[in-house]
Amino acid sequence: MSRFASFDALRAACLDLPAGHADMAAKASDREGRLTKPPGSLGRLEETVAWLSHWQGRNPPVLDRIEIMVFAGNHGVTAQGVSAYPSEVTAQMVANFAGGGAAINQLARCAGAELRVVALSLEQPTADFTQSPAMTEAEFLEAVAAGYDDVSDTADLIVLGEMGIGNTTAAAALSGALFRGGARFAGTGTGVDDAGLARKRAAIEAGLARHKHTLADPLRAVAALGGRELAAILGACLAARHKSIPVLIDGFVSTAAVAPLKALRADALDHTLAGHMSAEAGHRLLLQELGLKPLLDLGMRLGEGSGAAVAALLLRAALACHTGMATFEEAQVSDKEK
Amino acid sequence: MSRFASFDALRAACLDLPAGHADMAAKASDREGRLTKPPGSLGRLEETVAWLSHWQGRNPPVLDRIEIMVFAGNHGVTAQGVSAYPSEVTAQMVANFAGGGAAINQLARCAGAELRVVALSLEQPTADFTQSPAMTEAEFLEAVAAGYDDVSDTADLIVLGEMGIGNTTAAAALSGALFRGGARFAGTGTGVDDAGLARKRAAIEAGLARHKHTLADPLRAVAALGGRELAAILGACLAARHKSIPVLIDGFVSTAAVAPLKALRADALDHTLAGHMSAEAGHRLLLQELGLKPLLDLGMRLGEGSGAAVAALLLRAALACHTGMATFEEAQVSDKEK
Repeated sequence: MSRFASFDALRAACLDLPAGHADMAAKASDREGRLTKPPGSLGRLEETVAWLSHWQGRNPPVLDRIEIMVFAGNHGVTAQGVSAYPSEVTAQMVANFAGGGAAINQLARCAGAELRVVALSLEQPTADFTQSPAMTEAEFLEAVAAGYDDVSDTADLIVLGEMGIGNTTAAAALSGALFRGGARFAGTGTGVDDAGLARKRAAIEAGLARHKHTLADPLRAVAALGGRELAAILGACLAARHKSIPVLIDGFVSTAAVAPLKALRADALDHTLAGHMSAEAGHRLLLQELGLKPLLDLGMRLGEGSGAAVAALLLRAALACHTGMATFEEAQVSDKEK
Repeated sequence: MSRFASFDALRAACLDLPAGHADMAAKASDREGRLTKPPGSLGRLEETVAWLSHWQGRNPPVLDRIEIMVFAGNHGVTAQGVSAYPSEVTAQMVANFAGGGAAINQLARCAGAELRVVALSLEQPTADFTQSPAMTEAEFLEAVAAGYDDVSDTADLIVLGEMGIGNTTAAAALSGALFRGGARFAGTGTGVDDAGLARKRAAIEAGLARHKHTLADPLRAVAALGGRELAAILGACLAARHKSIPVLIDGFVSTAAVAPLKALRADALDHTLAGHMSAEAGHRLLLQELGLKPLLDLGMRLGEGSGAAVAALLLRAALACHTGMATFEEAQVSDKEK
């Protein structure tokens, strides 16, 4: 029996969200204004500290424990020839994560973060969504619960990422379902050629047409279009909100995975920050639809949580300034002429 | 006797620049293409590694020793009421750097960098450029040499920053001299009000008018408009090129300081990267004029090398991926379907 018994039970959990702690954000901002620099001159670094305080409910916030959670899944829609890489690469990359050889392993070390990889039934891909729903209700809820239950109570910040050959196709279809526009969210993913991109667009349109009667419900849309790693990311993002843990979202797939939460409740992603703008074509559109402003724009398009892991470096820098800098009074520096 | 005997001698040094090592950049790019990720999917992280290899002349490049050099100077033009803070703040902030209480102290620690602060005759501000040249030829050359000689032979990367009340006025005037347009480079600096901004614009226009007969020479323009910390940054950037050390440039003032090098020789800044886009209004224009694409855009406007120090975190992350990741062959991951 999964943590969530039905679509309705999960929906109720998505609608029942704690608010943040505006008083703690105000304390953080107040301190920033007294540090030896012109007010606001650290720009978004200052904002991120206030955001951490707001959602951790403490000032100063802490980043003793950053957890990067990478969820992996396989997609039946790869049968439509939508990816530049074969499906077995998903499991091979999970092995590469375990061996320490992937980008996210190096970036986790740089960020002083713990890396946790959760492989979700890789041997059993979700169904091809051009033919049938990617997941049954039970499969979907199980994947959401896997993500939800994997969030530890002790994390100070969670970075959400993914691995799954074919999953930019699922993410583009889901984005199209939530924000209209069909295949406008389709990009080249890991590097598909023109013919592959045409097949990808066709698969997305076919999926949206086949499931059009269920797509108005954001949760049923995820179940219909897949995949398990997107459902798990949704669950982890929800759990983080319930546990007062801020979240850094990675690229296109991760952003698409949490988008249904915002469709259900307008403030559902306020405890998240977009770590970066991916070069994957649909990400810019999706971030615009969600009103999220990414911290970084480095032309990255790898997934694995890689862009958000780099963004975690910025949060560490911001917090180091917040806690380590002297105030004007402490340093006997003349404040601004009023 | 300064390292550079005259404007002409310095100009000769600015024109005599070593090329980089395209073969080493190619080696870096080749390795990036074999690592377990879609080619190019780390975006600018991959580019920065190739750039480090190109200018260090080695692959893999190293970042064992990152040196942040902050040059501080005082400006006579503050007599025109161009800044929100009094001039004594320059020396007070230098003391704050020494005490470890400034933003750059925290960011240097985050970046694993050594911080070196060089105060340039703070007790003797440069002349008010609305009345006379900011520096004599001898004063200018001495400041350039101070920066040049302070670059150690053993640094793997240099981050150039500054501190100097009034120096966004000097930087805007210098930018106007190099790229036409008078006061269009003026911004609010540390937070001057509307009346102060009007005084700042007037001072810039007055300076450009007073020195119009010498501004065609980029080096004489720096001497005329100041200040010492800009001249030192120019010298340090030049020394880094001669010593095969890549450079991260910080914000508006630091960028203006190195701009004359490019005016003298089109490829003179190829060993530099713009660490970030400052919120100071003139920086975007100046970066466009110089054809530099910043790594970060976080709304920072503090100076001190702070934006470039944050960018150094990205270079460390990029290098960690380059040296730590497995290749497709090593990890037995299937490469792209051809």
